[in-house]
Amino acid sequence: MNQQNKGKLYLIPTPLAADALHKTITEESVKVIGRLDYFLVENVRTARRFVSSLKLGRKIEELHFEMLDKNTPAHEVEAICNPLVNGRDMGVMSEAGCPGIADPGHLAVSFAHRHDITVVPLSGPSSIFMALMSSGFNGQSFVFHGYLPIDRQQRKNALKSMEQEAVRKGQTQIFMETPYRNDKLLADILKTCNPQTLLCVASDITGPDEIIRTMSIKNWQKSMPDLHKRPTIFLLYA
Amino acid sequence: MNQQNKGKLYLIPTPLAADALHKTITEESVKVIGRLDYFLVENVRTARRFVSSLKLGRKIEELHFEMLDKNTPAHEVEAICNPLVNGRDMGVMSEAGCPGIADPGHLAVSFAHRHDITVVPLSGPSSIFMALMSSGFNGQSFVFHGYLPIDRQQRKNALKSMEQEAVRKGQTQIFMETPYRNDKLLADILKTCNPQTLLCVASDITGPDEIIRTMSIKNWQKSMPDLHKRPTIFLLYA
Repeated sequence: MNQQNKGKLYLIPTPLAADALHKTITEESVKVIGRLDYFLVENVRTARRFVSSLKLGRKIEELHFEMLDKNTPAHEVEAICNPLVNGRDMGVMSEAGCPGIADPGHLAVSFAHRHDITVVPLSGPSSIFMALMSSGFNGQSFVFHGYLPIDRQQRKNALKSMEQEAVRKGQTQIFMETPYRNDKLLADILKTCNPQTLLCVASDITGPDEIIRTMSIKNWQKSMPDLHKRPTIFLLYA
Repeated sequence: MNQQNKGKLYLIPTPLAADALHKTITEESVKVIGRLDYFLVENVRTARRFVSSLKLGRKIEELHFEMLDKNTPAHEVEAICNPLVNGRDMGVMSEAGCPGIADPGHLAVSFAHRHDITVVPLSGPSSIFMALMSSGFNGQSFVFHGYLPIDRQQRKNALKSMEQEAVRKGQTQIFMETPYRNDKLLADILKTCNPQTLLCVASDITGPDEIIRTMSIKNWQKSMPDLHKRPTIFLLYA
């Protein structure tokens, strides 16, 4: 069986912030969503609401939304991806941003590659990438660490080691935290890193309260912003 | 002087492939371009052509395009960014994709942060990110290395070391090559890496000849694609 008889898997980015639809979603994504019947989504409610908001004139209850999250066991991934094998196109949507990056969408993508199914990424917003663009830091060499350890000492060690890599390799260090712990993480960064190290804080990207600032640790210490519950990407550079 | 008196620096993504305008450029980007008079660009000719293609009804010859490339000396960056300080908004555009990532736009961004000028990233296509989404690999932990060393032995060492990091850290390894050397790089990857290591090759993203495939090195060895002069992102994962 070749790729022609199978469906395609579309990777569909979703807005990062409320009311940021026209800022971030392309005509192409709207067109693709308009002709898909099958969706794999991190959160069915948000996904239905997003598709409804596009006002495509389709009956939401006739579309198939299957939940795909980090706890979905392998055999279930196989089952919910099965329409692809039977020639149906499917769309993967993240809760916010690009599916497959720091999100369970990669399970469906990996299924697709194993079954010789074409994967089609659509262009859209990624908070990690938009933060990197906006930091002014090295974009030729960067690393994304996801979430840092929760344990205080381990986290400090992680920060120290990232700072060293930034100096040694000229490599931009990107990481994040659960939004309600952002202020603690920021405090730890300001305590742990060298005064001349550069920190970029990128919060509420594409939202009305977007803040993106790069300053030295020393200058951040003079004016600590309130990041509580605000989706934020942190970047370090030396 | 506060941010209110100054201009804003908009980071404007451009299409990755010819004829991919509606696939990748948002309404918001078109709107922002439509009201800017000052642009910092990697290549003036391509940038003018891109702005013209949007058919905004503006006289291209009345817009200001300044070249910003990796050889632009620091004092010149200061000079061409000066309209920002005087309250004019400016846009940075890359040759293709997102400015500031693997492109000289970061020099303007870094100027903006040093002068307390607001940086506004717009959503758009990034071949690195679209390749990562489409690989099925770990998106919680990844590293982008840019170009590998040209020296054969150094390049093999780099490939070996990336493969080890992929195994040791479960970290996706992303890199690229000048398109006319892609086939050589692919041959080196297939010779150097373990048969069971996974390789994703993402070529001509958003273009009519887009190919994105993840397979083991062993399977790639059986069917080597022709990547000559095709913009390609390579990803390794264990």
